[in-house]
Amino acid sequence: MGFSTNYTVSWGDCDALGIVFYPNYFAWMDRAFHQLTRQLGFDQDTLKYDYQISGTPLSHVDCKFISPAHYYETLAIDIGTSDLSRTSWQLEYRFHCEERQIAIGTERRVFVSHTNGRLQKTDIPDDLRSKILEI
Amino acid sequence: MGFSTNYTVSWGDCDALGIVFYPNYFAWMDRAFHQLTRQLGFDQDTLKYDYQISGTPLSHVDCKFISPAHYYETLAIDIGTSDLSRTSWQLEYRFHCEERQIAIGTERRVFVSHTNGRLQKTDIPDDLRSKILEI
Amino acid sequence: MGFSTNYTVSWGDCDALGIVFYPNYFAWMDRAFHQLTRQLGFDQDTLKYDYQISGTPLSHVDCKFISPAHYYETLAIDIGTSDLSRTSWQLEYRFHCEERQIAIGTERRVFVSHTNGRLQKTDIPDDLRSKILEI
Amino acid sequence: MGFSTNYTVSWGDCDALGIVFYPNYFAWMDRAFHQLTRQLGFDQDTLKYDYQISGTPLSHVDCKFISPAHYYETLAIDIGTSDLSRTSWQLEYRFHCEERQIAIGTERRVFVSHTNGRLQKTDIPDDLRSKILEI
Repeated sequence: MGFSTNYTVSWGDCDALGIVFYPNYFAWMDRAFHQLTRQLGFDQDTLKYDYQISGTPLSHVDCKFISPAHYYETLAIDIGTSDLSRTSWQLEYRFHCEERQIAIGTERRVFVSHTNGRLQKTDIPDDLRSKILEI
Repeated sequence: MGFSTNYTVSWGDCDALGIVFYPNYFAWMDRAFHQLTRQLGFDQDTLKYDYQISGTPLSHVDCKFISPAHYYETLAIDIGTSDLSRTSWQLEYRFHCEERQIAIGTERRVFVSHTNGRLQKTDIPDDLRSKILEI
Repeated sequence: MGFSTNYTVSWGDCDALGIVFYPNYFAWMDRAFHQLTRQLGFDQDTLKYDYQISGTPLSHVDCKFISPAHYYETLAIDIGTSDLSRTSWQLEYRFHCEERQIAIGTERRVFVSHTNGRLQKTDIPDDLRSKILEI
Repeated sequence: MGFSTNYTVSWGDCDALGIVFYPNYFAWMDRAFHQLTRQLGFDQDTLKYDYQISGTPLSHVDCKFISPAHYYETLAIDIGTSDLSRTSWQLEYRFHCEERQIAIGTERRVFVSHTNGRLQKTDIPDDLRSKILEI
């Protein structure tokens, strides 16, 4: 079924050509990730205090840019899971402005905890895995 | 009566103390300014093409920080006019999280046009002035 | 004598008019503050571990914009102290591009520590005060 | 031979875990791209006025994160060409902190010009191609 959010591009998000300065797409993916996980019931504080998971840092991201977006345009962001392994979760973000495809990005996030004083990969807990599979 | 918008602080907006990195407040004021002027009927493209006004750059801004905001908190931003002169408009932005005051910022924006190849202050057109006074 | 640093404006720092998106000036002030305090010998980690000072959050900032800056221009940033009280330090940042004045900003920073579980103002330690007065 | 630049991570570049907020890596790649092309002699203004090339937007980017970077760390960024086609240039950026590898990113940039009122891919001019091959 998926999760969807949206973002209206502001003047300050654009460069001298009047189109979105591309690193912003990743900031919007990260924001959408936190909106999604809050809705699923496991924000960063819940992970830390209820699951002893220190965070969900990125191991790899990419983005394909299809059509430039301009200030004042509202972008829909559709999110889905493209892969779920034992310790990592890959999300896909499809940006579009009505029918016009704008960009497709992915984030691979690794669940980590402090073990012997170091950040190390940890298994995604079963109940969180179930919530992820519901998206 | 005023204009109001809101913004939910995201993980990436915060610094290593878990509180908002302060320059972001100005980005949110700028975003709110563009939301307001679009609603009033004069976004940057309208200014440029219908009024030959090149933009509304800042001459002075300030912000008083009252209480730090954290990720996931939703901030209401109430906007009003604190001064309106012949060529400039000063806006006031009050950030709060329910009853808790967060910050109060101001922006003084100057209306400019290209005259003899240089950006120069220009009078705020009467019909725009009327719209501003309606806020 | 003062402290000076510089920053070359990049493409992504500018908006659709090709001039600096103004919240960036505050990010550059913050960056310059951290460069200065590291050089003086009290970065954020030193404050935390050697002085039990939790941070130096802002109580008030402002900026006057004199001339717009464009991508590729190198800005010099001259920093000085404009006020030093018992618990707070106000810094002044003068941005210029050779002889052309660009902007003048101030930051008032408050030294805070955790007292009874809350962040509270704390006196600036004497040896740090001495270092500040040397600038 | 390659081109190299560096960047010192500032307080405001980091998130609540004290590590770099990842979209910043792309802002630093973009900044490094503009430093490189200026040094090669073809900044955005040169492209526009001397070559009628409107810009070098991205078609695809990615980044692999190897080790998190913290505030105050100075990152070296080594840049090379990983592919050069008729109309696009793929650059590789290797971030490291002395011997510690931090991240490896790529940007594919397309040369575009306005043709019949639309942005369209255009051949990379031969003399620019020669300069790129010198890196």
